[in-house]
Amino acid sequence: MSTKRTHPLPLALAQAGPDPVADLAPVESLPASEKIYVEDGDLRVPVRRVHLSGGEPPFDVYDTSGPANHDLHHGLPKLRQPWIDRRLAHGDDGNRSQMHYARQGRVTEEMRFIALREGLDASFVRDEVARGRAIIPANINHPESEPMIIGRNFLVKINANIGNSAVSSSIGEEVDKLRWSVKWGADTVMDLSTGKQIHETREWIIRNSPVPIGTVPIYQCLEKVDGVAEKLTIDLFIETLIEQAEQGVDYFTIHAGVRLPYIPWTAGRTTGIVSRGGAIMAKWCLSHHRENFLYTEFERICEVMKKYDVAFSLGDGLRPGSIADANDRPQLAELDTLGELTQVAWKHDVQVMIEGPGHVPMHKIKENVDLQLRICHEAPFYTLGPLVTDIAPGYDHITSAIGAAMIGWYGTAMLCYVTPKEHLGLPNKKDVKDGVIAYKIAAHAADLAKGHPAAQRRDDALSKARFEFRWQDQFNLSLDPDTARDFHDETLPAPAAKGAHFCSMCGPKFCSMKITQDVRDYAAAHGMTEDAAIAVGLAQKAAEFTEGGQDFYKAP
Amino acid sequence: MSTKRTHPLPLALAQAGPDPVADLAPVESLPASEKIYVEDGDLRVPVRRVHLSGGEPPFDVYDTSGPANHDLHHGLPKLRQPWIDRRLAHGDDGNRSQMHYARQGRVTEEMRFIALREGLDASFVRDEVARGRAIIPANINHPESEPMIIGRNFLVKINANIGNSAVSSSIGEEVDKLRWSVKWGADTVMDLSTGKQIHETREWIIRNSPVPIGTVPIYQCLEKVDGVAEKLTIDLFIETLIEQAEQGVDYFTIHAGVRLPYIPWTAGRTTGIVSRGGAIMAKWCLSHHRENFLYTEFERICEVMKKYDVAFSLGDGLRPGSIADANDRPQLAELDTLGELTQVAWKHDVQVMIEGPGHVPMHKIKENVDLQLRICHEAPFYTLGPLVTDIAPGYDHITSAIGAAMIGWYGTAMLCYVTPKEHLGLPNKKDVKDGVIAYKIAAHAADLAKGHPAAQRRDDALSKARFEFRWQDQFNLSLDPDTARDFHDETLPAPAAKGAHFCSMCGPKFCSMKITQDVRDYAAAHGMTEDAAIAVGLAQKAAEFTEGGQDFYKAP
Repeated sequence: MSTKRTHPLPLALAQAGPDPVADLAPVESLPASEKIYVEDGDLRVPVRRVHLSGGEPPFDVYDTSGPANHDLHHGLPKLRQPWIDRRLAHGDDGNRSQMHYARQGRVTEEMRFIALREGLDASFVRDEVARGRAIIPANINHPESEPMIIGRNFLVKINANIGNSAVSSSIGEEVDKLRWSVKWGADTVMDLSTGKQIHETREWIIRNSPVPIGTVPIYQCLEKVDGVAEKLTIDLFIETLIEQAEQGVDYFTIHAGVRLPYIPWTAGRTTGIVSRGGAIMAKWCLSHHRENFLYTEFERICEVMKKYDVAFSLGDGLRPGSIADANDRPQLAELDTLGELTQVAWKHDVQVMIEGPGHVPMHKIKENVDLQLRICHEAPFYTLGPLVTDIAPGYDHITSAIGAAMIGWYGTAMLCYVTPKEHLGLPNKKDVKDGVIAYKIAAHAADLAKGHPAAQRRDDALSKARFEFRWQDQFNLSLDPDTARDFHDETLPAPAAKGAHFCSMCGPKFCSMKITQDVRDYAAAHGMTEDAAIAVGLAQKAAEFTEGGQDFYKAP
Repeated sequence: MSTKRTHPLPLALAQAGPDPVADLAPVESLPASEKIYVEDGDLRVPVRRVHLSGGEPPFDVYDTSGPANHDLHHGLPKLRQPWIDRRLAHGDDGNRSQMHYARQGRVTEEMRFIALREGLDASFVRDEVARGRAIIPANINHPESEPMIIGRNFLVKINANIGNSAVSSSIGEEVDKLRWSVKWGADTVMDLSTGKQIHETREWIIRNSPVPIGTVPIYQCLEKVDGVAEKLTIDLFIETLIEQAEQGVDYFTIHAGVRLPYIPWTAGRTTGIVSRGGAIMAKWCLSHHRENFLYTEFERICEVMKKYDVAFSLGDGLRPGSIADANDRPQLAELDTLGELTQVAWKHDVQVMIEGPGHVPMHKIKENVDLQLRICHEAPFYTLGPLVTDIAPGYDHITSAIGAAMIGWYGTAMLCYVTPKEHLGLPNKKDVKDGVIAYKIAAHAADLAKGHPAAQRRDDALSKARFEFRWQDQFNLSLDPDTARDFHDETLPAPAAKGAHFCSMCGPKFCSMKITQDVRDYAAAHGMTEDAAIAVGLAQKAAEFTEGGQDFYKAP
């Protein structure tokens, strides 16, 4: 990355004033890793290849990090531009959504890319998109993005929220959080900026994002009316949608389900309305005593969405903000409306996912998924956590990772992360990483529990490395090699300890791994297999074992 | 705490050499908290009372921290000594277990204490103990402990492991970890020391522990035979049990289920035997080709247990150490044996809990609980996590908190914590706290999901504080007020921000809490309740709302 503008900038990034990303250091790639590409004709799908020791084959990991250390002033290469141009040149009917193409039976390059990425047939990808059971957020004006899919028959995805607020952060920090999010594995990123420079911040983010970008357009609308919710109008909203769609936002959270009749029901709640967008629309509805214009004018919104292929993320503006409010009447009433709107969007071939809670105790989580799938006709579910208790501010990445893992297992397609700063402040870079890692854990645990055929390979590879004392391989196969290595080195920093057949937890004498390797070696050396070993009796073998020396352990 | 030995030391703590706890600073109590006592006759049950603002009543929290800042050289007051003495003076038949008394229909002071602590009838406590469905770990030589109960019809408990190893830590550090564990809410503590000074370390820990202490006696046995597992004998083991029982250990992990025929089955596993105790016994069995002496001499062990009222924690020496090995044949074979041994122990009126895994993907967790309850006749289950994936070393407090919350919901009585250092090194003080908090989250989430009548009160109190912008109350009601406050202050450090009706996440304009309070105030001011509000129509009220000013927000 150069901080000198030696090349012409993309128009949108060219601006007066100081360079907002001048201070950003290059992102270091993960250790022992190499970016390789799985190729199919003109398609090249990035994969992170982790090189292992001890003669083990390398291990390939799904990779979201995008091209390495490009010039942020230039933005990323426009991977999808030729595909988009070709489609527009051949019989464009004004609807550019992946769902539209899928329903025509067309397999797009995006679908082929995803098929390679997920190890599935492209026709399966197409059929799931056509059916509405999966979405490919892929605005035609964000050609820099590497196609990915959100649906419950694919790998569980995670989203990271970034964005500044009126009281904190800058463009440079947000671009840095974007790079940090995708380095650690975020599948999509939402820019929730609400402060100044909202348009410019978004431009820097989109041009440099290899993953789909989501926004909540009502935030910018509210900035445009100086924070006075009552002044919002559908025209202003449509204008803002177009502005953001032109920039390349891939999905919009739209709180069209916050209907006027539901709002008074929230007055009796413990925590009322906790969605920012939901609260804004509730205020508008109440003060005008009119139905939510996002609901009444929903088809106008669909017209914008299909032109750019922006996907709906139908917002749950009435989601519960506390355990006390989980699965209550306003939440479920809104879900009914989101189901109704899903069918309206699908009529326009616009892609839809449905947002979900929030705060839910464990025993009420499954009901959320079951209801959502039924009411919303299996449109992908996209949940925030949920947090399974309210009592741990400062640790809500954990309270919510519990709920996220479970809801992912039950069928949620994408998990929106929660950082340790939730309820307390704006996340910094460390919080972003903590949130992403906690959610990578939740998503992977869900893939395992769903029986995804490829998921357990990584667990097996890492556990094998652990058992064989290949410390570096164990670190490098983990979600966060840096932290694993640092933690090990806290107590045993010497390089030689990386070859040691023990660690500081137990020391050499108590290492169960070491002892069990003795057991295994012994069994193998004597051809012992399961029942056979018992049948022939172990007496004589045991004698040999003792005579041969009690310890088979050899230093490497 | 004084570092000068101005009082005579308990004999066991008096020793030559430097004072191991000289450098320990006093433990700070949690903010806005006061230790109060719920009294019943001669019983005084400690409770932490959190004082709130805004006219809210104080909130009482279950408290494990013990008497504040006593002199570590003296040890804690011997709360239970008069009860024990009275029982021994009146018809002692050599069996001092709580189960023995319960089966005679006697309600002990320990049971009454626990009934007050948990808000239940003492007769219920007695019946659960008599039935074997709950245990009260309470060695007659650990009179300093405050009675607690482990059973699935009570609050879910958590255990923290401490203890040094051959390559790390000292007595002072371990005593500090003990105090730290109970400050943050550990219900029991296991001393897993394997290094030098194993007896002295334990003495310092027990004399200063307000919670039951568990150990794995085979570790000390192995030290006594210089790490040569083959030299272990039942006599050495019994001698060590007596030594530790005399000191006051409340429960022993004993790997009596690692039977000779099961051991070869582990050779085909991805990670063999990962339990230290299990591996030691496997090595002994294989090298002698004899059945595990802990199994064959189990009744001799029971004789020691009942004399001191040490509870069994029947160890799962063959627990899975990876996702690949979950719920496999050796694990389930061992569980069968633990069920058999449970009945032997109960014949002696010895209390029993059963240890469980380990590493288990989410979809296989429930099976563990269902099998354990059936095979082990509902003896309390005590699990290590389980970790729901292997791929996140450095974050195993999170991978395992997911499994722990779920297995707690399904009926596990106590959750053994896992720290971020798991698989990597010995936990330091920070790791201990991170582990305890993650497990307090899991246990509380389980209590909520099980529908424990008192559990949701804390969530409700905290969420109410959050919604009403009582920032200090929100912090003080949380599991870790220090971290919650620090995180808030990172972006808004000014004292005035603690009274602010917004935070740095959204800033004042986008605060959904603030907006929704407007909605609520508006609804209340106009007598709007749910359907009624809709029935009368909101049109006129909406007009008033707009005329009256768009913003009802008043600074406090």
